[in-house]
Amino acid sequence: MKINGIHYRSVWLADDGYTVEIFDQTKLPFELKVIQLNTFQDAAIAIKDMWVRGAPLIGAVAAYGMALAMRQNSSNENLQIAYDFLVKTRPTAINLKWALDRTYQALKSTSSTHRVETAYRIAKEIADEDVELCHKIGEHGLKIIQEIAAKKSAGEVVNILTHCNAGWLATVDWGTALSPIYMAHDAGIKIHVWVDETRPRNQGGLTAFELGSHGVPHTLIADNAGGHLMQHGEVDMCIVGTDRTTARGDVCNKIGTYLKALAAKANQVPFYVALPSPTLDFTVWDGVKEIPIEQRSGDEQSHVYGITAEGKHHWVNTVPQGTVCGNYAFDVTPAELVTGLITERGICDASAEGLRMLFPDLYPQNL
Amino acid sequence: MKINGIHYRSVWLADDGYTVEIFDQTKLPFELKVIQLNTFQDAAIAIKDMWVRGAPLIGAVAAYGMALAMRQNSSNENLQIAYDFLVKTRPTAINLKWALDRTYQALKSTSSTHRVETAYRIAKEIADEDVELCHKIGEHGLKIIQEIAAKKSAGEVVNILTHCNAGWLATVDWGTALSPIYMAHDAGIKIHVWVDETRPRNQGGLTAFELGSHGVPHTLIADNAGGHLMQHGEVDMCIVGTDRTTARGDVCNKIGTYLKALAAKANQVPFYVALPSPTLDFTVWDGVKEIPIEQRSGDEQSHVYGITAEGKHHWVNTVPQGTVCGNYAFDVTPAELVTGLITERGICDASAEGLRMLFPDLYPQNL
Repeated sequence: MKINGIHYRSVWLADDGYTVEIFDQTKLPFELKVIQLNTFQDAAIAIKDMWVRGAPLIGAVAAYGMALAMRQNSSNENLQIAYDFLVKTRPTAINLKWALDRTYQALKSTSSTHRVETAYRIAKEIADEDVELCHKIGEHGLKIIQEIAAKKSAGEVVNILTHCNAGWLATVDWGTALSPIYMAHDAGIKIHVWVDETRPRNQGGLTAFELGSHGVPHTLIADNAGGHLMQHGEVDMCIVGTDRTTARGDVCNKIGTYLKALAAKANQVPFYVALPSPTLDFTVWDGVKEIPIEQRSGDEQSHVYGITAEGKHHWVNTVPQGTVCGNYAFDVTPAELVTGLITERGICDASAEGLRMLFPDLYPQNL
Repeated sequence: MKINGIHYRSVWLADDGYTVEIFDQTKLPFELKVIQLNTFQDAAIAIKDMWVRGAPLIGAVAAYGMALAMRQNSSNENLQIAYDFLVKTRPTAINLKWALDRTYQALKSTSSTHRVETAYRIAKEIADEDVELCHKIGEHGLKIIQEIAAKKSAGEVVNILTHCNAGWLATVDWGTALSPIYMAHDAGIKIHVWVDETRPRNQGGLTAFELGSHGVPHTLIADNAGGHLMQHGEVDMCIVGTDRTTARGDVCNKIGTYLKALAAKANQVPFYVALPSPTLDFTVWDGVKEIPIEQRSGDEQSHVYGITAEGKHHWVNTVPQGTVCGNYAFDVTPAELVTGLITERGICDASAEGLRMLFPDLYPQNL
């Protein structure tokens, strides 16, 4: 999407055609810094140190890391070394291994003289496919926003609430939850986005950065505020992303999503979840019972990063010395609170039936 | 309540018997600084600059301010000057005017030679009455905690979630929502408190400070986490305070209270509101429709106060430059989400019937 009118992806090739460029996302939303990756070791650091984040983007950067490795040395030995090195950078990211396996298999059966071009081609394919996936999610989600806009008076604003960051910075372009929002804005629909701050990691700042850079009107609010806004008709719909959706349509997403879904249900506000099919997990049925919720360091809750009036960057402790902090990273929103799932194939009910109809080829026969 | 084993109120007299002492609450929860008030002007600054906060405490400090004024000069003229000066410090705080009116009326009909002792006596009465009110709320609320504890195995912990700070720092002692918690802890019931951070003003830090100082086990969490915890049986009850309760039992309290009440209802967790009767507002029926919600500066949302690793105190901006922030201070929890109201007279349903039964002398005849 755009930053000051210029279109960017979250990973791209420099003008030389082979150097890989990314944003250092650890500096966002305060500073926009482009980093050049020249070696597979650079790509590994970028993933490990979270200069890039979001499963799809991590996969694409890993694939480009393999391409850089082949430029360094296209031998079988280096192919193996690069794979082994990159696959360990973020052991739990499923897209990482998927992208690396795909690249590795293709390169294995390619002669070493053609590996560079093959590796770049596959990395581009992986990136382009993600863009296409997100673009389709956007097109389907756009229809929902158009329907809401059509019911309003001319010029009346459509208010959309989102939680966390499911935008283009976490994918290669468009994003998931934000993709329909960008399309609606680009289509000239008057929209305004309520951006949840999303404590404890404040990903709302990334969403505000994305929306602000692209020119989409938005207001950042405390996570506490959404219920009040929905009570007062200030939210026309919610769209969030998801890390994992179960076979019956339960949605695991950033902590706090569940509270917004409860408020949406109580106030008849449509609550949509945008997801690319690779995040469907048909091995899980009851998300609340079966999905273990990661507990992270309490320091992420107690300490906040920001900039002083003098422009100095600081981490500050916001709680009394010695306070024990809890840090639950995700929660599960039961399917009955979800109005619909927006996927690259279209929109379906958050239910076994809905998912089976849209994904007959993927949905397990025995469920 | 206690700080490191020593009992404190939030306002008290120094050993000389007339100097008024308070904590500078703007320094909390990071620093415990006692301030001496020697003149009514000092008391006015303490209220205006929010060294003291919470309606009951403001009332008590204002009354002591009148006592300081009488020491300075017990003339009719100075009585009027002090009243006029103090009453303007926080124009919307109802307790402030109530306490000042009560003191003023009593002093007006007292000869100037006896005004000092009368003023100190009334200020002490006002403070003591608030302590008594909060103590009674605690006794009634304690019964609920005892019942929950009785249903558990021996030694099993009772988990209580609270939002914002409704503790002794906002009253003279005990607090409202925290009063039953202190009593349960002092009675030897094993309790643990989930303390909501309470963005955007982070009053959870004050609650963590209070509980930590008194020795009550607690964990500070993101406001986003409560729903997940309730889904997983980690919360036995919620207790919150309130700024205003309507004739049908709707509860206006710190923004985000409503989301916790929704989650409590959805997960069959009892949700109690502790309130002294002066916060009942029988002129309002439908809280959601009738209570205007204060919108405060977006800077309170974007900027966070804390301490760096080097011990420096800083305000930091946590959002991208130029981000518009919303800041809704309160929300309304509809009565049907509230399990019960804990008042100084006992516990009642959050309904017109419940309130009329408990407060037949106060409840309007025509409702």
